[in-house]
Amino acid sequence: MTYLDHNAITPVRPEAEAAVLRALSTFGNPSSVHAAGRDARDLLDEARSRVADALRVSPRDLVFTSGATESTALAIRGVLAKAPEGRGALVVTAVEHPCVLELAHELARQGTPVRVVPVDRRGVLDREAFHRALGPDVALACCMLANNETGVFQPVPDLADLAHAAGALLLCDAVQAAGKVALDVPALRADLVALTAQKFGGARGTGALWISPGVNLPPVAGGHQERGRRAGTENLPGIVGMGAALDAAVGGLPGEAGRQSALRDRLEAGLVAALPDARVNGAGAERLPNTLSITFPGADGEALLMALDLEGICASAGAACNSGSTTPSHVLSAMGLTPDEARATLRLSLGWSSTEGDVDHAIRVMPGVVRRMREALAASP
Amino acid sequence: MTYLDHNAITPVRPEAEAAVLRALSTFGNPSSVHAAGRDARDLLDEARSRVADALRVSPRDLVFTSGATESTALAIRGVLAKAPEGRGALVVTAVEHPCVLELAHELARQGTPVRVVPVDRRGVLDREAFHRALGPDVALACCMLANNETGVFQPVPDLADLAHAAGALLLCDAVQAAGKVALDVPALRADLVALTAQKFGGARGTGALWISPGVNLPPVAGGHQERGRRAGTENLPGIVGMGAALDAAVGGLPGEAGRQSALRDRLEAGLVAALPDARVNGAGAERLPNTLSITFPGADGEALLMALDLEGICASAGAACNSGSTTPSHVLSAMGLTPDEARATLRLSLGWSSTEGDVDHAIRVMPGVVRRMREALAASP
Repeated sequence: MTYLDHNAITPVRPEAEAAVLRALSTFGNPSSVHAAGRDARDLLDEARSRVADALRVSPRDLVFTSGATESTALAIRGVLAKAPEGRGALVVTAVEHPCVLELAHELARQGTPVRVVPVDRRGVLDREAFHRALGPDVALACCMLANNETGVFQPVPDLADLAHAAGALLLCDAVQAAGKVALDVPALRADLVALTAQKFGGARGTGALWISPGVNLPPVAGGHQERGRRAGTENLPGIVGMGAALDAAVGGLPGEAGRQSALRDRLEAGLVAALPDARVNGAGAERLPNTLSITFPGADGEALLMALDLEGICASAGAACNSGSTTPSHVLSAMGLTPDEARATLRLSLGWSSTEGDVDHAIRVMPGVVRRMREALAASP
Repeated sequence: MTYLDHNAITPVRPEAEAAVLRALSTFGNPSSVHAAGRDARDLLDEARSRVADALRVSPRDLVFTSGATESTALAIRGVLAKAPEGRGALVVTAVEHPCVLELAHELARQGTPVRVVPVDRRGVLDREAFHRALGPDVALACCMLANNETGVFQPVPDLADLAHAAGALLLCDAVQAAGKVALDVPALRADLVALTAQKFGGARGTGALWISPGVNLPPVAGGHQERGRRAGTENLPGIVGMGAALDAAVGGLPGEAGRQSALRDRLEAGLVAALPDARVNGAGAERLPNTLSITFPGADGEALLMALDLEGICASAGAACNSGSTTPSHVLSAMGLTPDEARATLRLSLGWSSTEGDVDHAIRVMPGVVRRMREALAASP
């Protein structure tokens, strides 16, 4: 199997698998005051420090959650709940992950003023529009660090400064960047940063939210875990696996980023050489080293995915959680692609387990599949 | 180590550990439309059917969550959000788990009418008071199946009938009962039933909420997983482990319940024989086979726990999430124990990994520890 869908989920790294296994046999509840509880608490503290060190933050400011969807919801709902009268508006970029955008739409339906800031053709946020959106009523702005479909980076530190100047906080979804590039969380200058283990070789079911020491989210009712900021017994195996995975990912940088970037560039060059009308989305912007969003005009992305699947290639048309949807990608639409162009686009994403063989296989197989598909579409009435 | 704290968390069963390991290497995202995604989807479907079969429900009506705290919050917030005008009140028992009670208190602070129904000295709900609390304004009543501190059962099917007659729904927290006794979910006649894997030998970080087909909770914004009822990538290893653990637990019943019940009765008899003034809480009621809540008048529970810990015995004073709190147990207080009596109480809970040796060790060590502690307390000024 040629797995080119690491932005959907990565295989679990051996280091993380070993750590999960170890933690599975440490069965105490970290809240218990006996030896078994202390063992669990020690393991939890150690994992928290490990994640914190990799992100260059204090362990005290990390809250473990069940994943990025919970992390971003905790941040958004928490900031809005604490927002003073007249400061309840939310700003999001047009290319945020569905977990943020759908929550924003839901909050808008319930009366929260929500402003969506456009991006340019490269997928980079319109700085002026972002600045204009930051009225005195804004509590929180949400901007991802790197996009899940195109890999395009946003200038988060600059945007955080703009948000702060307007008296707003900034939430940064760093899910796709973590483990793929060096991530110095304080340097982002954001107030809240969301992560999930499954994108850098940890086990799914575990995420984190970094909360800047100056930010007070309301306590979450239901339990005193995570210093009152997230209720429910901590997912110890998942958290310990997250620490091991992030350590391994960060330890491998920048060599691994260079390796993936070279593989990605070779894949990109190979496909464009074979299909000269293919267009790389976000090509003019700074991108993640592992991600390639490529449009094959005249092809149908969903049909292409199925044909590739038959050839043993796993790719995607966009966010996994939108798979099967007939709506064209909101990210590509925001970048100005027509619905047909968006539907003719594939996302190919590499990861720690990707090999030259994977890339060679894709370069060998994909052009023929695209050509056959176009011919079939052209011949159909 | 003599682990007598299975109601806090159980060791992971070997069957569950093997299942988690298998699932860790199935890395596709169940939402993806390629081979890796299908593998993950198949594993998820299989685990869902396994849990559903063990509970005698349809897999369609199960929603996987990150644990019981999330399951109960999803149910309570969901029902209240959908409640018609004038039907927004909540009824809870005085002995519910902190995850339910604390959320109820938080909702009360925000304006939700909340009624707390008392229990009798045995810990059994006051049926008449429950009936009275069910005014025409009640949307939801919450009643656990078996208490986490005393093991005392509530007559849930009868209470569900009362709730339905009043036009309200019933949420049953079956966390402590699942896997310890045969659990026929439809026979509970509840509308929503919450579970968590870590109480029956699964890995922590995974819970479930069964939602009766007639109940429509509002969709959770942020992702389309779990048929729109819970957002975020599914915790596949945790869910698969939950299926294996529940299967193993249910497969071992009723033999294992009988074994634990015999061990618990022996522990109880041994302690009461050595310390005749010890009192068993909930003794007059139907209890879980594994749980013993015992009061040693004149002793101090927290100090006792530390002394037992030095002897290699892990026990607790109540819910793990309340450990370290100086407030006496709300469960024991609701049963009429004085604060001193409540503070002189230990919870000893057995599980699948408990042995005769564990019980013998506790019977041998505990009476001496209690006596020394009482003497020290009596001698102190």
